[in-house]
Amino acid sequence: MSNNSSFSKNIKNALVNSPPGEWMSTIPEECIRLNSGYPAPTLVPSEGIKAAVNRLIDEEKDLPLHYIGSPQISRLKEQIQTRLNERDIYIKSDELLITSGACQAIDLIARIFIDEETVVAIESPTYMEALEIFKNYTSQFISIPVDHHGLQTDRLEEVLQERRENGLTIPKLLYTIPTFHNPTGTTMSMDRRQHVLELATKYNFFIVEDDAYGELNFHKPPVPLMSLDKNNLVIHVGSLSKVVAPGMRIGWVAGPSELISALAWFKKDLDHPFAQATMANFIEREDFDKRLTSLREVYGEKCKVMISALEKYFPESASWYIPAGGYFVWVKVQGVDTEVLLKQALSKGVAYVPGKYFFYDPHVGTEYLRLSFSYADENEIRKGIKLLGKIIKP
Amino acid sequence: MSNNSSFSKNIKNALVNSPPGEWMSTIPEECIRLNSGYPAPTLVPSEGIKAAVNRLIDEEKDLPLHYIGSPQISRLKEQIQTRLNERDIYIKSDELLITSGACQAIDLIARIFIDEETVVAIESPTYMEALEIFKNYTSQFISIPVDHHGLQTDRLEEVLQERRENGLTIPKLLYTIPTFHNPTGTTMSMDRRQHVLELATKYNFFIVEDDAYGELNFHKPPVPLMSLDKNNLVIHVGSLSKVVAPGMRIGWVAGPSELISALAWFKKDLDHPFAQATMANFIEREDFDKRLTSLREVYGEKCKVMISALEKYFPESASWYIPAGGYFVWVKVQGVDTEVLLKQALSKGVAYVPGKYFFYDPHVGTEYLRLSFSYADENEIRKGIKLLGKIIKP
Repeated sequence: MSNNSSFSKNIKNALVNSPPGEWMSTIPEECIRLNSGYPAPTLVPSEGIKAAVNRLIDEEKDLPLHYIGSPQISRLKEQIQTRLNERDIYIKSDELLITSGACQAIDLIARIFIDEETVVAIESPTYMEALEIFKNYTSQFISIPVDHHGLQTDRLEEVLQERRENGLTIPKLLYTIPTFHNPTGTTMSMDRRQHVLELATKYNFFIVEDDAYGELNFHKPPVPLMSLDKNNLVIHVGSLSKVVAPGMRIGWVAGPSELISALAWFKKDLDHPFAQATMANFIEREDFDKRLTSLREVYGEKCKVMISALEKYFPESASWYIPAGGYFVWVKVQGVDTEVLLKQALSKGVAYVPGKYFFYDPHVGTEYLRLSFSYADENEIRKGIKLLGKIIKP
Repeated sequence: MSNNSSFSKNIKNALVNSPPGEWMSTIPEECIRLNSGYPAPTLVPSEGIKAAVNRLIDEEKDLPLHYIGSPQISRLKEQIQTRLNERDIYIKSDELLITSGACQAIDLIARIFIDEETVVAIESPTYMEALEIFKNYTSQFISIPVDHHGLQTDRLEEVLQERRENGLTIPKLLYTIPTFHNPTGTTMSMDRRQHVLELATKYNFFIVEDDAYGELNFHKPPVPLMSLDKNNLVIHVGSLSKVVAPGMRIGWVAGPSELISALAWFKKDLDHPFAQATMANFIEREDFDKRLTSLREVYGEKCKVMISALEKYFPESASWYIPAGGYFVWVKVQGVDTEVLLKQALSKGVAYVPGKYFFYDPHVGTEYLRLSFSYADENEIRKGIKLLGKIIKP
């Protein structure tokens, strides 16, 4: 393989970017999974999906098993438009593309926007998989810190201003999870939402709004950036992974029709008609509002259980944000290296994700850990936090 | 969107590459589809897939609906290894990656190997979707003609020798469909298989062997390039689309483990656990050899019907290759522009794919058309060819 320089280069990229999630697949089965950003097993509608497949094949025979698939696929698009309308996002059919989960949407966006010279602004910390995808395309990142009101837009403005004054490249994209942020669980305040939209207009960059958790609010519904955007600068990425089932891989991207056509071009045959038709058939029979109400209640309750347990079992030196929705609690434990602690935690039967994996700079975030209350049940959450508390203050 | 140069560039790429298949989705439903490279509806095991989903969810509940999915997924890999063993390809688990159909495999390969300076050697004609994928990464192609013994390897050697003598870049990849070629239906002779492997060694390029139709032999089984390769220069791409169901999107790529790791890195979450677990469950209960025997008989018979009809209804100025497997017959009709003819054909109720779509150079191939005997039944094939014959010689 000697003369294949590009091959070597890309292989090298792949190998230096050591997959952070790899150890997760080796977690012992009996471990309490406070690491998993998965929906609770009891909330995954496996019987509903099974029934949808039965209806689909009884009614349409081989149709959903071909490339073009069933007519249901266009209904899925309408169903997603309906879900977006509920959130004050009104888009036409040619402004929406169904993808293989939110990750494919992010990958397609990266493909269109990013080359090696492109600067991407990201939150610090941020969703590790998105960061890994962006790293396949560029190594030029600007990390903007997140606090309990979300992205620090003042800090973003300072950086943009400095870069403009110094003749440096302005980021082409800002990747943000404004609502029920992964990993911090925080939500961007309304002032900051307005501010970041102003900055996008002033400095001419696109905002990729990752809204994977947006429908999982425990209190009042959040306002998506896209619904506030007057200048077509927000590209909205969503997913049914958190509210139906991740294994179905149904996500989407909404944005200007010119962009959506280009994304669709690169997506091509990377579709999966059977999964899409099954999902459409499932949603058609599902009372989705009832479904969401129930998810919000269950996750809200599990979140409360986790926060109470943290208060009870974690040392005073630990601190966290209280999330208003989503899946995660972000905990800081002063003076503890959470990656070192993990081995001990796993041996005691509880798993979490060390904070460092969520940062572009591998030397920061060592005192943080991400806890998920989505997968484990309430008893497991209590037990897991108690175990962790014991390890932290022996 | 003014300052986003890379966005504009990629959008432009997408728009100049007008999708050749777009008109296909507008074909009237009552048309006889001699255009579709789809399996016959009666041969798509919709009841088998339905039964697999029912077993899967009854046994594993929510498991196959999560990201990591069911343990069945690793069984699918073993099942594909078994299928490859039948074809004298012996690979280890880390030399195989399951993809979302053969197209994702080709896209991932392109991503690893190709940048704007990369030269890719392709067959002329070739599979249009593969060509479109490669065109997303480079515009430097060398087209090598195909005849009734497949790729003209002498011509390839001449081109390589000329390029070396003139200090021009040697292709990094050769993309070939050596067995039951799309669109020509031809199969590369054993001498040429040996020759192309020698050339790959001498000029140091990789061969992407697209084997999507390789199991659909009407007579003796063909010998894959990978089974003859001693220097790890063949990357083998396969699919269950033609022998089970395209809508499930199960394909694979086999190659050196270092390459497979890199492809897996870029693939990441673009997986679909539910489809993979369903397929594994389906294959486990399926007598696959019996399935293949039946497919070979049915497609072989339909091919015969098409050839007889061509002999009966097409003018003497028309000529074609007789395929030994696969889905397609490639017809040349002298003095006819097959794209102009298509409108007339559609209005009479029969569809095919004009030959020009399978060439890199849009000005060649105008006298050719690709007929598929896979989707239509025997009566439709006879009727369709008769209708086409009438239009060609009114």
